[in-house]
Amino acid sequence: MVVLGSTGSIGVNALHIAKAHGLHVEGLCAGRNVALLNEQINAFNPKFVVIGEAALAHQVAHPNVWVGEEGIMRMLEEAKSPLVVNALVGFLGLKPTLKAQSLGKKVALANKESLVAAGAFLDTSAIVPIDSEHFGLWYLLSHRPMKRLCITASGGAFRDTPLDQLPHMRPQDALKHPNWSMGQKITIDSATMVNKLFELLEAQWLFTCKAYDAFIETKSIIHALIDFEDGSSTAHIAGTSMQLPIAFALLGEVKEAVLPSVDLTQVGSLEFRSIDPARYPVWELKNALLENPKLGAVVNAANEAMMTHFLEGRCGVVQMARGIVQAYEAYETQEPQALEDVFALDKEVRAFCKNPIF
Amino acid sequence: MVVLGSTGSIGVNALHIAKAHGLHVEGLCAGRNVALLNEQINAFNPKFVVIGEAALAHQVAHPNVWVGEEGIMRMLEEAKSPLVVNALVGFLGLKPTLKAQSLGKKVALANKESLVAAGAFLDTSAIVPIDSEHFGLWYLLSHRPMKRLCITASGGAFRDTPLDQLPHMRPQDALKHPNWSMGQKITIDSATMVNKLFELLEAQWLFTCKAYDAFIETKSIIHALIDFEDGSSTAHIAGTSMQLPIAFALLGEVKEAVLPSVDLTQVGSLEFRSIDPARYPVWELKNALLENPKLGAVVNAANEAMMTHFLEGRCGVVQMARGIVQAYEAYETQEPQALEDVFALDKEVRAFCKNPIF
Repeated sequence: MVVLGSTGSIGVNALHIAKAHGLHVEGLCAGRNVALLNEQINAFNPKFVVIGEAALAHQVAHPNVWVGEEGIMRMLEEAKSPLVVNALVGFLGLKPTLKAQSLGKKVALANKESLVAAGAFLDTSAIVPIDSEHFGLWYLLSHRPMKRLCITASGGAFRDTPLDQLPHMRPQDALKHPNWSMGQKITIDSATMVNKLFELLEAQWLFTCKAYDAFIETKSIIHALIDFEDGSSTAHIAGTSMQLPIAFALLGEVKEAVLPSVDLTQVGSLEFRSIDPARYPVWELKNALLENPKLGAVVNAANEAMMTHFLEGRCGVVQMARGIVQAYEAYETQEPQALEDVFALDKEVRAFCKNPIF
Repeated sequence: MVVLGSTGSIGVNALHIAKAHGLHVEGLCAGRNVALLNEQINAFNPKFVVIGEAALAHQVAHPNVWVGEEGIMRMLEEAKSPLVVNALVGFLGLKPTLKAQSLGKKVALANKESLVAAGAFLDTSAIVPIDSEHFGLWYLLSHRPMKRLCITASGGAFRDTPLDQLPHMRPQDALKHPNWSMGQKITIDSATMVNKLFELLEAQWLFTCKAYDAFIETKSIIHALIDFEDGSSTAHIAGTSMQLPIAFALLGEVKEAVLPSVDLTQVGSLEFRSIDPARYPVWELKNALLENPKLGAVVNAANEAMMTHFLEGRCGVVQMARGIVQAYEAYETQEPQALEDVFALDKEVRAFCKNPIF
């Protein structure tokens, strides 16, 4: 397989599973973490290596290092592996997903932005999601008629922050995720609930049902639920580790232990809350977005643009969320009709968000 | 179908489902509640009617009323229905289960004592359990390798009683079940955890797995869980109504709404506890009983005998439980080898419990 984003938490877990099950790693791509990339090169001896930043290429311990997006495209073309793990972060992961699909490769997709921005233009049947919620839904699918697919949110870093203090929260506050240890972008996306909005879109592209929803389960023990027509619901329960979804994405069915089972008597209690738009303003977009999922391209672009403002100290977390809602409202009639429109729209929305008025 | 125990809560729910789905009710059997039985006769016009107490027969509004166990046997023989709902209470439900099986009828079984006392001598493939926990397990069964089947207990009436007050608890206290409205015997069986012990045996006779266990979920929202080898667990969630298990038992698969779905954000929280043998002394028998499930006949007989002492004020709830454990210890080498042994053992154990020494 080829692993894009090999030094992030998904990439590291994917290589862990690869090692445990003797999967061949043909190509690795990392952004900046040369030290870890060199360790991975040493451990897996990949044929191809790509580094995100050109200036770091000479530090990579491999005879044949390619650079950036162009390097990824070339690696995908030359690789014989039928499977690509795409754990790149953000919209820049879309082109590699498209490239892998055009080459007939299966994509184990942690880059949910690919589906959010361009789900309508991807072959979702050749995508296996690497996401604990979608793994949970997939695990629960049955022959019985389903009424609603439901995923849970931890509530992120600001779950318990008094509402009047929310405007003062800074990037370092947003990066304190209560349950999961993840990369910077997804941790902030969790704090704003953008991540869950994206996951609902992801669920809608991947699984057919009448309704999709999410609520907060504060310990991230229940990842997904299905409400069936008869009145039964089933829930998927597992520890907060990505190794389970990754193992199934890489290996298909897994019959041996990947994680220890959760002992609910040790967990003691679970708490459930609705997602309150007063705390998570982007949640106002949920219904509209599920009805117009192609507009995911707008929300994704606005989110990445506004997050830069937030990370660089130009706005607070509430303003970041409001900027996303404003962008959606400005572009809600601009549904992309083709893949080219997605890229054009992405540029336009980023320009719109350049100087937001709060 | 034929409904044994038609005026109890299971029977009433079964007739509710029968009416809603136009199922033909060929026979009814009730114990003492003539008023309700007469209403049911009027509503369903059954061909056969049996009343438990002979003295009440003349009050039953039916031209052809049979009486007691003999009446049940005759009704089963003459009935053409391929399905018998057995919602009788206690060991006296076993003979009708055996009779129905000998006649090739499918048994929708709420009388769990049949399986507890004589699971080894029944054709479990022709039994559909009417029990929310076993329905939950059945609903969750999948093609994936399972590690443990788990059912939940409410904890019963004495869940939160200070341990030092337990010995003073009386029948009227035991009958206050926190979550379910049920008959007297099962409510007391819940207070002592005998019910859950029986359900584990029932699960073992019905479903093949490596391990079986139970824990307390105080709201009875999660009924059953399966731990899979990979580390995932799945849970069955539904409202505290028997209509779901009964509908599936009577109709096979059900594709329309039987109950509204549980909204976990309305439930708010769930609490899980281990089952503490200090509070529930019969839980000490769990492992031994699962290893020697034929000894369910001993525990069932001791439970019925000790419950009579408890109901008639001759012992407290802790003594009742200790009497069951003592009987088990006295008879643990007496595993029944044939069906006749079950009936002989039942008599012996009841005699043993006649004058318990605490």
